[in-house]
Amino acid sequence: MAAQRLLVDIHTHVYLPRYASFLRSRSAAPRIFTRTTPTGTKEERLLILDDEPSGGRPIGAQYWDRDEKLKFMDRHGINVSIVSSANPWLDFLPASTAHQLAGELNEDLESYCSTSPSLSSSDTLKRLYGFGLLPLVPEVSINSLLEIVDQISKLPHLRGIIMGTRGIGNGLDDEALEPVWEAIAKAGLVVFLHPHYGVDSSAWGAKDNGHVLPLALGFTFETTTATTRLILSGVFDRHPTLRILLAHSGGALPQLSSRLASCIDHDPVVASRLKHDARYYLGKLYFDAVAYGPEELGFVSDVIGRSVFKYGSDADGFSSGTKKVVGSSRMLFGTDHPFFPPLKETDKWKSVTENLEAIESVEGWGEVEKENVRGGNAVRIFGLGS
Amino acid sequence: MAAQRLLVDIHTHVYLPRYASFLRSRSAAPRIFTRTTPTGTKEERLLILDDEPSGGRPIGAQYWDRDEKLKFMDRHGINVSIVSSANPWLDFLPASTAHQLAGELNEDLESYCSTSPSLSSSDTLKRLYGFGLLPLVPEVSINSLLEIVDQISKLPHLRGIIMGTRGIGNGLDDEALEPVWEAIAKAGLVVFLHPHYGVDSSAWGAKDNGHVLPLALGFTFETTTATTRLILSGVFDRHPTLRILLAHSGGALPQLSSRLASCIDHDPVVASRLKHDARYYLGKLYFDAVAYGPEELGFVSDVIGRSVFKYGSDADGFSSGTKKVVGSSRMLFGTDHPFFPPLKETDKWKSVTENLEAIESVEGWGEVEKENVRGGNAVRIFGLGS
Repeated sequence: MAAQRLLVDIHTHVYLPRYASFLRSRSAAPRIFTRTTPTGTKEERLLILDDEPSGGRPIGAQYWDRDEKLKFMDRHGINVSIVSSANPWLDFLPASTAHQLAGELNEDLESYCSTSPSLSSSDTLKRLYGFGLLPLVPEVSINSLLEIVDQISKLPHLRGIIMGTRGIGNGLDDEALEPVWEAIAKAGLVVFLHPHYGVDSSAWGAKDNGHVLPLALGFTFETTTATTRLILSGVFDRHPTLRILLAHSGGALPQLSSRLASCIDHDPVVASRLKHDARYYLGKLYFDAVAYGPEELGFVSDVIGRSVFKYGSDADGFSSGTKKVVGSSRMLFGTDHPFFPPLKETDKWKSVTENLEAIESVEGWGEVEKENVRGGNAVRIFGLGS
Repeated sequence: MAAQRLLVDIHTHVYLPRYASFLRSRSAAPRIFTRTTPTGTKEERLLILDDEPSGGRPIGAQYWDRDEKLKFMDRHGINVSIVSSANPWLDFLPASTAHQLAGELNEDLESYCSTSPSLSSSDTLKRLYGFGLLPLVPEVSINSLLEIVDQISKLPHLRGIIMGTRGIGNGLDDEALEPVWEAIAKAGLVVFLHPHYGVDSSAWGAKDNGHVLPLALGFTFETTTATTRLILSGVFDRHPTLRILLAHSGGALPQLSSRLASCIDHDPVVASRLKHDARYYLGKLYFDAVAYGPEELGFVSDVIGRSVFKYGSDADGFSSGTKKVVGSSRMLFGTDHPFFPPLKETDKWKSVTENLEAIESVEGWGEVEKENVRGGNAVRIFGLGS
């Protein structure tokens, strides 16, 4: 049953076959193209951004084939995955195409999940659930977005929505999105906020450091910025039941949250705008546990717990215990599969084992908290028992 | 004596009178200009960046008058300050002007410090020490930089060098700077790495959030990026005695350090480049304690300590104790004065008391560690006893 010890991966991506075909048809990024390797074989590569270093990255069946996803899960002991389309989603499309493709991809993903194996013969729980997609592109109508929120809420194996940070062109702090937040909150869907654009690449300098700077820093800066702008816009004051899950453990937001609070306190433009200290809002958010180190995970749980004990945010059902214990109730294991494959063939992927070891090694988390981060929290938050 | 309990502020800025006059003569940012307020009085304002929101900020004697600095110190119980020029230093000047002004400002700062009051009648310790300036601008000669490093090393009250992140135009990971790092390390000067540019302001969106996003996020992203690029360039492998102090507790670097290590491990371009895991290098750095929250400070000490225990970096004289205890030996109190003034008249500045309360409240730091972060570490690291 769902309440048993389950390893649930809430950060795992797919390019659904329909989407991969679409990328193959394109001549500008994002695109999938074929090139001949130095040894004469052909390989497909994925170019996510036009200025991406090293001509993109190799791509293969693990990006679209469900059997590959299930094999990866079996290999790492992952019982259930909540799968999301990988960036850049539909961001680059005109509104009408984006709307149509969102609808189709959501149906595709529902089918991908609903026809997946059950966890066991006696269990109604499936091995795959999903985050749907909205056509968040410039000039889309709000009605189109609301229609797709409604579609997703009616697809039984979709439990949330993955989205990037640009909204309909002006970011997520755009007032135009108010009805969308309202609808998402009402539907009880979890928003998985995920980066794609990073920051202006001139920040990385002229040296070839591969993908390290855009991935380690650009991605996390983007999530941090988008979430901070959401906080400053008052979205969490107006929609207190909205559930947003941050990729990569919230990027840099936890470490910068007290500085953020201080900067708000000292700025006449915003000092009186929000209902709470900025640190309060971290206790309203959910964080994946994809930070690769136990000290980082422990710290994230500390700032979530601080929000509950010091700034009075909701304890999400956990009202006693240390900051770290209470904070752990909003953190969820993830792998970022199929990204971060090992450079050399190995049985298990280091990007997975590192995150599992990190959870295991957090000082101040007991066995209960570790189990919850590995799966119990996901079962509760995504309603996987029902 | 220096070994007694001292409160030492290592992050406190000045626009020396010569520099302020220079800013008044300019018609483009950075500049100081006079404007008439709605009530008809005249006020001077500082515009650091051309696209700065709210027409810059009010500026007054606290930015250049030494008596104001000493009054601020007395008001907050600060015994000694290690003063640095505020951004943007000389970045915007042609090489010859930058060279000349650096030399003059370093002499000015030496005089500012050497003629300051002694800590007590029986003490040779002064109340003010300083970080000098290098003419780090495009087209400056390396000899010019080495000449100024030499000048600073001979000015007895200057104990380090403050610098931004652009180097001589290509960032701090520029090979051309190798002789400069070597000379700084040999002279035993501490580099205070401080942000100015942030990231491309398009990241902040169209809403007026005052200075919050560039200050809370832009500044810290910039420091994080510059330090990461330094690590990736191998500077700390080649100059293991180089001492770099990061502003604002290293920005986001501590929280992103395990992700950085993972991204390096998974990228063929850089996977074999460095001598150590990326997390090792955090234990080679120094961090101010300007993060406004105890959880943040505790976490920074945790990742420094992790570097020592898990990745084998130097313990800086502290080889036993918990990670947090060992890590605290590389953290130093600061205020960021005269920035972050209170919005309403108060006896003590919240930006100061918050950082002092944060130090006082770190779980896992005993009285010894707190005293060291408040002053003992600064005495040791800057040789204030001698």
